[in-house]
Amino acid sequence: MSRVTFDRSADKALGFVFSWPIRVYFEDTDAAGIVFYANYLKFFERARTEWLRTMDFDSSSGAEKFGGFFVVKSSNVEYHAPASLDDELASLLAVKKLGRASLVLEQTIMRGDQRLTSAQITLCFVDRTHWRVMPLEPTLAARIVAASSMSAT
Amino acid sequence: MSRVTFDRSADKALGFVFSWPIRVYFEDTDAAGIVFYANYLKFFERARTEWLRTMDFDSSSGAEKFGGFFVVKSSNVEYHAPASLDDELASLLAVKKLGRASLVLEQTIMRGDQRLTSAQITLCFVDRTHWRVMPLEPTLAARIVAASSMSAT
Amino acid sequence: MSRVTFDRSADKALGFVFSWPIRVYFEDTDAAGIVFYANYLKFFERARTEWLRTMDFDSSSGAEKFGGFFVVKSSNVEYHAPASLDDELASLLAVKKLGRASLVLEQTIMRGDQRLTSAQITLCFVDRTHWRVMPLEPTLAARIVAASSMSAT
Amino acid sequence: MSRVTFDRSADKALGFVFSWPIRVYFEDTDAAGIVFYANYLKFFERARTEWLRTMDFDSSSGAEKFGGFFVVKSSNVEYHAPASLDDELASLLAVKKLGRASLVLEQTIMRGDQRLTSAQITLCFVDRTHWRVMPLEPTLAARIVAASSMSAT
Repeated sequence: MSRVTFDRSADKALGFVFSWPIRVYFEDTDAAGIVFYANYLKFFERARTEWLRTMDFDSSSGAEKFGGFFVVKSSNVEYHAPASLDDELASLLAVKKLGRASLVLEQTIMRGDQRLTSAQITLCFVDRTHWRVMPLEPTLAARIVAASSMSAT
Repeated sequence: MSRVTFDRSADKALGFVFSWPIRVYFEDTDAAGIVFYANYLKFFERARTEWLRTMDFDSSSGAEKFGGFFVVKSSNVEYHAPASLDDELASLLAVKKLGRASLVLEQTIMRGDQRLTSAQITLCFVDRTHWRVMPLEPTLAARIVAASSMSAT
Repeated sequence: MSRVTFDRSADKALGFVFSWPIRVYFEDTDAAGIVFYANYLKFFERARTEWLRTMDFDSSSGAEKFGGFFVVKSSNVEYHAPASLDDELASLLAVKKLGRASLVLEQTIMRGDQRLTSAQITLCFVDRTHWRVMPLEPTLAARIVAASSMSAT
Repeated sequence: MSRVTFDRSADKALGFVFSWPIRVYFEDTDAAGIVFYANYLKFFERARTEWLRTMDFDSSSGAEKFGGFFVVKSSNVEYHAPASLDDELASLLAVKKLGRASLVLEQTIMRGDQRLTSAQITLCFVDRTHWRVMPLEPTLAARIVAASSMSAT
């Protein structure tokens, strides 16, 4: 019993480098019959988590491996159209800017060709002991650069 | 701008020793138009937290003060009638049994005189370092006994 | 970029007829460093939803197709061991009893061979207009019977 | 057993017209030991809900009374410092701009004098049948204007 896989070939054209499938369950919805506005931030975070995992940065062990981890500094979200129960969505991710100690991502929730929600999420890299902003660990930074350029091909 | 306070005088008759008001927001509901079934466990946990706080056991510092803390061992919940958006509920709590290392609570969600959800929640006391079951710290146990008998008066 | 698929061949021996993979994200955890106790009910519900989907009963359209839908009547959950961030879990489901208007499920959360949480969830079938208990729609009942016996082979 | 009331006299100076107390529970936190970033949007929504309630606009009946309701169009959130378990927070709200069919709010989460999270939330007023943007119902608009100027005194 495998999960449904989504055809995301069209996402390449948008410049997104990573896509993660999301199914909408009752837990995600509210009494207005749509996905509760805070829950899109969960969908964004799942895609970020899985994308970082492809770079060998896990939520549970990444900080130890790379000396630090990412915290969310700001989230700017536009809600274009609501997602509903049972919807099959894609949580897409593109790197907008990689700074010395920060990472700006464009994240979008799509249902087929329709863009439901789009966001710009800014992350800071902080050391794991004092949570102070520090330069990205070089190996991780190099992997992010490499992953980001994948969409150019 | 103070919170609404609920008249819970009738709860005394039920033997409940603690009551905590809950307002239902969009975040609590789902696309069926009612409170999502998992979220009643949040309402139960808020009442437990506030009740323990009256015994000087805080979620953040209680383990340090008393050498251990409570973990949920089992939750048996009956759903009688659904709560809806904007409902003013009361999350009630009674001590059913205090063991050497465990605590059995009866917890109920009421809307006025109507019992919406009732539960029996079993907690174990564990040491804060290894999370191993240990006897309740005596001062805390004494406070729970005292608090439980309050309803008898 | 496909989802990880889990080897669940051992689950057959337990009599479970359906398995759904769950990855633990930050959204599922709490400040104790483990999955928040209410969130296992989300994991159970995801497996129920996907299992019913295999019988052509969708959350969004099933009520219309079959004249009614399932509501949770009770949930009895035992917490054996906690799940943690990044864990790959399986949400398993077995039919314990199919009544005229009710369905009792055994649901378990496994991490590899370890049973973390086990539950007995009782559902009632209700008509979609007044939410009154009614006999299961016969086609759906037949499919549940067929699906349940799959594990016997 | 009444809820703690918070001294929010200092908030007047900030121009905020409404304040709602928030206590941080386990349900709000994540494995990083802090409030999960999506959950601040719940805190914002609670304050919006309670503020609108003071204008006789309830989540459950407001759409019927006023012909329409508010949907979130965008949320721009800055995370300055994290909230933690047991924190007593205030969710503050100020009207930044009232348009013909829209409402821009400044919302802030404070812990004492410390600003933890600040947001600009844009709402649109939509008719309750087709969810199409429509001018704010005049009585409601007048009440929002009146409520907004309260902070000037």
